[in-house]
Amino acid sequence: MDLETHFFKWLKKTPIAKGIGDDGVVLSTSLKERFGVISTNSKDKVLALDLFSEGVHFKREWFSLKALAKKAFLVNISDILCMNAIPKYALLGLSVPKSFSLKECSLLEEGIEEVCLKWGIKLIGGDTISSNTLSFAITMIGETRGRVLYRKGAKKGDLIISSARVGSSYKALHSLLRGGNACKKSRFFQLSFNVGFFKNLTRFISVGLDISDGIYTECNRLSKLNQLDFKLFKKDKRYKSGEEYEWLFCCAPKYKVRLKRLAKRYRANIEILGRVKRGRSNYKDKKWH
Amino acid sequence: MDLETHFFKWLKKTPIAKGIGDDGVVLSTSLKERFGVISTNSKDKVLALDLFSEGVHFKREWFSLKALAKKAFLVNISDILCMNAIPKYALLGLSVPKSFSLKECSLLEEGIEEVCLKWGIKLIGGDTISSNTLSFAITMIGETRGRVLYRKGAKKGDLIISSARVGSSYKALHSLLRGGNACKKSRFFQLSFNVGFFKNLTRFISVGLDISDGIYTECNRLSKLNQLDFKLFKKDKRYKSGEEYEWLFCCAPKYKVRLKRLAKRYRANIEILGRVKRGRSNYKDKKWH
Repeated sequence: MDLETHFFKWLKKTPIAKGIGDDGVVLSTSLKERFGVISTNSKDKVLALDLFSEGVHFKREWFSLKALAKKAFLVNISDILCMNAIPKYALLGLSVPKSFSLKECSLLEEGIEEVCLKWGIKLIGGDTISSNTLSFAITMIGETRGRVLYRKGAKKGDLIISSARVGSSYKALHSLLRGGNACKKSRFFQLSFNVGFFKNLTRFISVGLDISDGIYTECNRLSKLNQLDFKLFKKDKRYKSGEEYEWLFCCAPKYKVRLKRLAKRYRANIEILGRVKRGRSNYKDKKWH
Repeated sequence: MDLETHFFKWLKKTPIAKGIGDDGVVLSTSLKERFGVISTNSKDKVLALDLFSEGVHFKREWFSLKALAKKAFLVNISDILCMNAIPKYALLGLSVPKSFSLKECSLLEEGIEEVCLKWGIKLIGGDTISSNTLSFAITMIGETRGRVLYRKGAKKGDLIISSARVGSSYKALHSLLRGGNACKKSRFFQLSFNVGFFKNLTRFISVGLDISDGIYTECNRLSKLNQLDFKLFKKDKRYKSGEEYEWLFCCAPKYKVRLKRLAKRYRANIEILGRVKRGRSNYKDKKWH
């Protein structure tokens, strides 16, 4: 048993854990404005903390510093979006290598500014330290917009769908780890989210998450949580591909036509991967990180 | 200019920053309960993210793993308390060395559980990775209880006070870095908070923060923020001592008797360190971390 699994098992039984298992957690809130207080509206808040670390999630030579800073934020933005919330605030814990020049530091800042401006995110706090490796710990706070999507809620008979064809991330990482080149258009480098598509989807889907650890791993998790078998139609090494940050969701078969129409409208190259059945899934998958 | 200073300067001018400068940031909230939602009451929320990393804040041989986990949480709890809020929820980003045994992992978990149970904190999310060094990134969420204290708000003539005699943390770290032993009762190892004292204090003090980087450094920051001189009565190398997590606060001289009575009641060994004047402070201080 690896350490993360051990830790996760502990989280399941410790009395101090609450609401863990989704990409984010929901805290409800309402408007109140005053000196020094970040003014918020009456929408519930979704919180998520993700780490993005050199040697674990990336090697520095694979990305420009600007691209790294942006990706660190985008993987957290993905956590918020997949619960049908909109990212609003972030707290950033930044570990910068002692060897960094001020120029390198500025490149990070440019990346952070660019991604936060694009998404309308306000940086409201955090911490910075000099360290040996570059590492981002980001707490992202989003506001819900209607129905919140959880990992729990799948029903027997539901279709299992991904919002796009996955696999490019695996291919890129595989090649990089062997010292080769990788296609810069891969999801490993270029993250974009089909936000309009997902917003419309949330009206009729039952479960929503982002594919951060590969479809096999996510299906194993969904199976445990929903006590159902997330049965994929076929085996495919693309299903091992993590860091896709495409959406994985379930919907009742009666919505299939509506789903396909929506996908066409938003140019989403969706894939129907399988069906939820009675039982338990247990796909063999190596850890992505 | 070091990297943290550079980064902080950027934060001051970037349009994406909001509400930065205090130990935590306030988000207002209200009660709403539903499936999957952490139920909260109508109190405002205070959020803070702090890093606690091997090689930066500690060497592993200085602490037991349980003590380390506890200290990681306590330094974050301190951020919430000093704004006159009560810690309620935490998100934990944990980097565990690959070399850790399951036993070592369990010791960390025991420490986390102990400190969270003691303070009534619920762990609501986070992330775990295998890394080269041990590191904690904690986002602590607290609820306000009455008046929130900020770093801004000092008035000319205010007294500058620390909630206890500082210095033990500096002494311990100094000795440890030279390979010596350190008193285990030092604030470097043993953090406790005189919560009742501070709660009563908040009725008449103007500024509140925790001493994480030494009194000199904190006074320089307060000076910039309040555009006043935080004039200390004397020079003392104890004022360089960071990681004290005692409170630094300001109050009008007319409350001096009330303050001393309160300190006596709560056995707080307060020190009146100086007075707020017109001008700017610029104490020479080396960085604590």
